[in-house]
Amino acid sequence: MSRQQREALDAMLRSAPRRETPPTPEEQRDGFTAALTRPAPEGVVTRRTVLGGRPALELEPAGASGRGRLLYLHGGGYVVGSPDTHAGLVGELARRAGLRATSVDYRLAPEHPFPAAVDDGLAAYRELLASGTDPRDLVLAGDSAGGGLSLATLLAAREAGLPQPAAVVVFSPWADLTLAGASIRSKESADPIFTEADVRAYADLYVGAGDRAHPLASPVFADLTGLPPLLVQVGANEVLLDDAVRLAGRAGADGVEVTLEVGPGLPHVFQHHYGRLDEADAALDRAARFLTAHLSAGHPDAGALAPVH
Amino acid sequence: MSRQQREALDAMLRSAPRRETPPTPEEQRDGFTAALTRPAPEGVVTRRTVLGGRPALELEPAGASGRGRLLYLHGGGYVVGSPDTHAGLVGELARRAGLRATSVDYRLAPEHPFPAAVDDGLAAYRELLASGTDPRDLVLAGDSAGGGLSLATLLAAREAGLPQPAAVVVFSPWADLTLAGASIRSKESADPIFTEADVRAYADLYVGAGDRAHPLASPVFADLTGLPPLLVQVGANEVLLDDAVRLAGRAGADGVEVTLEVGPGLPHVFQHHYGRLDEADAALDRAARFLTAHLSAGHPDAGALAPVH
Repeated sequence: MSRQQREALDAMLRSAPRRETPPTPEEQRDGFTAALTRPAPEGVVTRRTVLGGRPALELEPAGASGRGRLLYLHGGGYVVGSPDTHAGLVGELARRAGLRATSVDYRLAPEHPFPAAVDDGLAAYRELLASGTDPRDLVLAGDSAGGGLSLATLLAAREAGLPQPAAVVVFSPWADLTLAGASIRSKESADPIFTEADVRAYADLYVGAGDRAHPLASPVFADLTGLPPLLVQVGANEVLLDDAVRLAGRAGADGVEVTLEVGPGLPHVFQHHYGRLDEADAALDRAARFLTAHLSAGHPDAGALAPVH
Repeated sequence: MSRQQREALDAMLRSAPRRETPPTPEEQRDGFTAALTRPAPEGVVTRRTVLGGRPALELEPAGASGRGRLLYLHGGGYVVGSPDTHAGLVGELARRAGLRATSVDYRLAPEHPFPAAVDDGLAAYRELLASGTDPRDLVLAGDSAGGGLSLATLLAAREAGLPQPAAVVVFSPWADLTLAGASIRSKESADPIFTEADVRAYADLYVGAGDRAHPLASPVFADLTGLPPLLVQVGANEVLLDDAVRLAGRAGADGVEVTLEVGPGLPHVFQHHYGRLDEADAALDRAARFLTAHLSAGHPDAGALAPVH
């Protein structure tokens, strides 16, 4: 089944019409919302909240009795996306991990360029700690730009003297806004979603004339020392493949416990396609196990979650 | 416990005396045997055999009732090591995976330079298939030079038109005999075992004036298309760290399903230290699950092994 699923997904993604004139950010947001949004899964209760001064969506799976908390930062090139577009993905991860999640509506570019998103990520993280969450009960996750932002948030937290969480998972992280990875070109024809120009346009909107190699914009260039155990999942059919590979290499060299998983034939943030792509479900299950294992391992009384070994 | 274990191991490895004059290959072999050898674990029956025209050691764990087979290629810079030095490590992996293993005494340099080891690896693989082993029941593993050799064997098998096995696991693979990875220098002080000069000396003995970038000597430069699911485990305190990272990146780019695990504070082939280093036991357990999951996943009637999801 899975090869058929992968090929059908690839064809579906390639069928999206290409416009002759570039859409405005608002048009991009509407298109992204229409193309991507899936509702939170059954059994996951959502409620609007505020975290770190920003709107946020809380997702609570039935039976999430432990103290574990997931802070999620959605993708969308720092320009599009919201907790609503990602309610399905975040709800699925939260449900599989048995964790209460908060997905933050951080400020987007071009209206709010770098480092607004990092400021909002750090404010959300800081408020979770300030409100009494034990960092050993807390994990982070994010996809695409939200993957890069998850790491930037942890780097900003480290600089602010805050403790690190128990673990972090990133799906297809966008971690190099200079686009220096070889896959930016070598995977352009294999990638059914992005061209180099697409990715560059997002970088233009987020960083503009700023320093694209800044470690909080491009964590592949950061010293990642002190970050918690990191799981990186990426598809092979991605211009961002080398962002993931180099991030894992950098993290490993900096003494971070890191696992990198590359899935052949898979597109950017393939985890969105749970329920219709076997690899998406398997990857979400592994991500959930990774998060709960690190919650439990460091903190035996973290809740009702069984460790996975 | 684990930080204490890692630090004790690091100190123990650093305490090995350095000689003023380089030892002969025979002296190196004796030293390696004395330092490294651990016996096969209790409950694993060993017997001498021959495979592909070379002596080999078969290791059969109690209860290995399935048809699954593990072909193992030991490490030692292509110059030292044998199935006897690795009886403990291979026996532990075989026991945890519930697989009958064969560890091959391939020819060593400098008496038998490149590509003698690859020829022996391929001959062993070919004989396992010729004797009726279904490739879906067969997995490969190797450490250090044996990790590079495992990949070279699969590349040679591909070129020979043979089918690929179900999966391959490599511990701290030596996959670049040109020593082009940044970690060759950046990790020299962190690595308690090897200097750049040590590694270069092994390359001199194995390849001499030959092409060190040959894909069968340095699989980081190979096209890895068609290889089976690959697990790469490596320590962060290794001059060979970047061999593992680049191998995973290359495999992913070539459409191979690949998982890379980097363990902080760990030395070269830390899996040798099972029973006294928690990370070694955990890594061997994950490697065993990876092997059996791929045996079972592709081949539901492969034997008595339970799939791991």
